Amino acid sequence: MAQSDVNAHCRIVVDAMGGDFAPQNAVLGAIQAANEDPSIELYLIGKEKEILNVISGNNLSFDKSHIVNADEVITMSDHPTDAIKTKRNSSITLGARMVREKKAEAFVSAGNTGAMLVASTLMMGKLPGVERPTIGTVMPSENGIVTVFDVGASVDSKARHMLDYAIMGSIFVREIHNISNPKIGILSVGEEDTKGNEVSLNALELIRKTNLNVVGNIEGRDILNGKVNVVVCDGFVGNIILKFAESFMSLLKTKIKLFADKGLLNKLRVLLMKGTLKKVMKQFDYQTYGGVPLLGVNGISIIGHGSSSVLAIKNMVLRAKEMHDKKLTQKIEESLKEYANIS
Amino acid sequence: MAQSDVNAHCRIVVDAMGGDFAPQNAVLGAIQAANEDPSIELYLIGKEKEILNVISGNNLSFDKSHIVNADEVITMSDHPTDAIKTKRNSSITLGARMVREKKAEAFVSAGNTGAMLVASTLMMGKLPGVERPTIGTVMPSENGIVTVFDVGASVDSKARHMLDYAIMGSIFVREIHNISNPKIGILSVGEEDTKGNEVSLNALELIRKTNLNVVGNIEGRDILNGKVNVVVCDGFVGNIILKFAESFMSLLKTKIKLFADKGLLNKLRVLLMKGTLKKVMKQFDYQTYGGVPLLGVNGISIIGHGSSSVLAIKNMVLRAKEMHDKKLTQKIEESLKEYANIS
Repeated sequence: MAQSDVNAHCRIVVDAMGGDFAPQNAVLGAIQAANEDPSIELYLIGKEKEILNVISGNNLSFDKSHIVNADEVITMSDHPTDAIKTKRNSSITLGARMVREKKAEAFVSAGNTGAMLVASTLMMGKLPGVERPTIGTVMPSENGIVTVFDVGASVDSKARHMLDYAIMGSIFVREIHNISNPKIGILSVGEEDTKGNEVSLNALELIRKTNLNVVGNIEGRDILNGKVNVVVCDGFVGNIILKFAESFMSLLKTKIKLFADKGLLNKLRVLLMKGTLKKVMKQFDYQTYGGVPLLGVNGISIIGHGSSSVLAIKNMVLRAKEMHDKKLTQKIEESLKEYANIS
Repeated sequence: MAQSDVNAHCRIVVDAMGGDFAPQNAVLGAIQAANEDPSIELYLIGKEKEILNVISGNNLSFDKSHIVNADEVITMSDHPTDAIKTKRNSSITLGARMVREKKAEAFVSAGNTGAMLVASTLMMGKLPGVERPTIGTVMPSENGIVTVFDVGASVDSKARHMLDYAIMGSIFVREIHNISNPKIGILSVGEEDTKGNEVSLNALELIRKTNLNVVGNIEGRDILNGKVNVVVCDGFVGNIILKFAESFMSLLKTKIKLFADKGLLNKLRVLLMKGTLKKVMKQFDYQTYGGVPLLGVNGISIIGHGSSSVLAIKNMVLRAKEMHDKKLTQKIEESLKEYANIS
C-alpha cells in the first residue's frame, strides 16, 4: 500500500448553502469535522449573515476570516450549466474557484449535483487524459459495500471513458475503502464476454488490457451480491440504478404500511418489528458513506445528497480530508498516465 | 374497451421440460390451469416418459394423445441461438413450431429465456412492422403494479424499437391489467424533455407523436412510485434493473440475518417479525404475475422464471389463455399499423 501523509494540513471549503437543510446542517457538520481533525483548515462559503446566524445560534466559535461571502445561491432546481454561467457569485462557483486558485485543496457541497459537476470540471479542470470525470456511489452489498462508477456524470459514454471510470474507481476503492486489489465488473446483461451492448463489449475489451483486477461482465443481480468491489457502467445506467435503489426502500415501507392498515393485529405486528427494521434499513442509508466523489478533476470535489444530515456533511468533509491525506488525485493521475496508450 | 371472446377454445402447449423444477412443476401447473378453465386444450411437450411419470406419480389423468414427445432439452446454460440450431427436437423448438403450424395458439415455457425468445421469433415470425419483439416484466409499485418493456429481448435498441415497445406495452397493460389509458414513461436520467441519452431522447420525440398517454421522461426513482403504468427502456437497461430488483430482496434478507446473529435479543426480534415480513415480501414475488410475455411475435409466447412454482406455471397458462381471449396479438398488430408511418 502506498504511503500517506496522515494528518497533513488541508484547506477544505464547504458550501454552507448546499442541501435541503442549509445552512444549518452544512455549517454544523463542517465545524464538527474540523473539531474532530485539527489539521483541517475549514472555510465556509455562502451568505455570510446566514452562516454567522447558525454559528451564534448554536453557541459555536469560528474564525470569521474563514467565512467567504457568496451572495448568490444555485438552487436544486436550477439548470446546472445555465446556473454556473449566470450565477457567478454563487457558493458553488466560488467554492470550486478557490480550489482552482490554490486557496483550498478540497470543495464539499450537498447542493445541486449537476452544478457541482460542471463547476468542479470547469474551475478545477480535468486531469491529463481524462475526457469525462466520473461520479461514483457506494451501496451496501452482501459482504460489505460496493462502489458504482459512473452514476450520472456522463451519458453515452464511450469505451475509453468507461476504462477511465475503471481506473479511477479502482484507485478510489483501494485507497479509501482499503481493498488492496479491487475486483472490477462491467455491468452487462450476461456474464460471458460476448454478452452486452456495443459500448460495454468494447469497454470490457479495453479494460482487459490493463492489469486491473477485472472479473469480467456482471449482471444486475451481481451489483449487490459482493462479487465485485467496483461496478463500471455508463452514467445513464448507473444513475437509473442509483435512483431505483433509493426508491426500493420507500416502496417496502409503503407495502408494510398497507399491511398494517389491514387490521389491528397487523398493526401490532408492524409496531413490534419497526425498531428492528429501522436498524437493518440504516445500512441502506447513503448518509453513512459521506457523499460521492467526483473523480478525474484536478482537485478534490465531494458531492452530497440534497437531504444530507449533519453527520453526512461531517463525513463528507472527513472523506475529503482522507482523499487529500492519501494523495488520491496524484495517484489517479499517475495511473491514468500508465494506461494512456491503451486502445 | 374492445370486446373479447371470453372462454374461446384455445390450444396451449406447455414446455414440460422448462424450469429448474421440470417436469414436476410444469406438468402439475399446466394441468391445474386446464382443470380450472375447460376451454383450454392443453398439450404437454417434452420427454414423454418423464411426463407420464409425473402424471401417474400424482394420480392425475391426462389424455395421452395430448403429450407431444420431444427428445431433446435445451438447458438453462445452453447458448440460445446455438441450441435452437443444434437441438431441433427440443421441447422449446417444437413447442414454438406448433404455434407456427397452427396446431396451437400459445406456447408457455419456464425454460431458457433466450432460447424461448429466439425460437418464438424464428418459428412464429414477427408481426408486420416489428423489427424487435419485446419481453416485459411486472413489478409491484406504490399504487399496484408497473410493467417494464424491454427487459432483455434487445440491447442497443433504436428509437423506432422503443416506440414499438411503447405501443405493444400499452396494449398489453390496457388489455391484461385493465388500465384503460396506460400512462407511459421513458426511462431517463431527468424529467425534462432534454434529459437523456441519444436514443432515449429520440424515442421520446417519436413516442410523443402518437396518441398514447405519454407522461414523458421518468427517472429511476419513478419506476416503482406509481407515476406510470408502462416504463419504456432499452433492453440493456431493463434487464439490469430487473435482475437488480430481484437481488435487492436477498440483500435485505442477508442484512436481517446478520442483525439476528448479533445476539439473542436480536434473534428474538427477527423471529417475531419474520412472518409479517414474509407476507409483505410476497408482493415482491414475481411468481404472482404469471411469467412475462414476449410481444411482437405472431402468436402467444409466455416465458417463465427458471424457478417457477406450480402456481407460477398455472398462472402463466391462464395468462396465455387471457391473451388469446382478448385477441391481444391482433390488437397489437392493428395498433402497430396505425403508427407505422411515424418517424
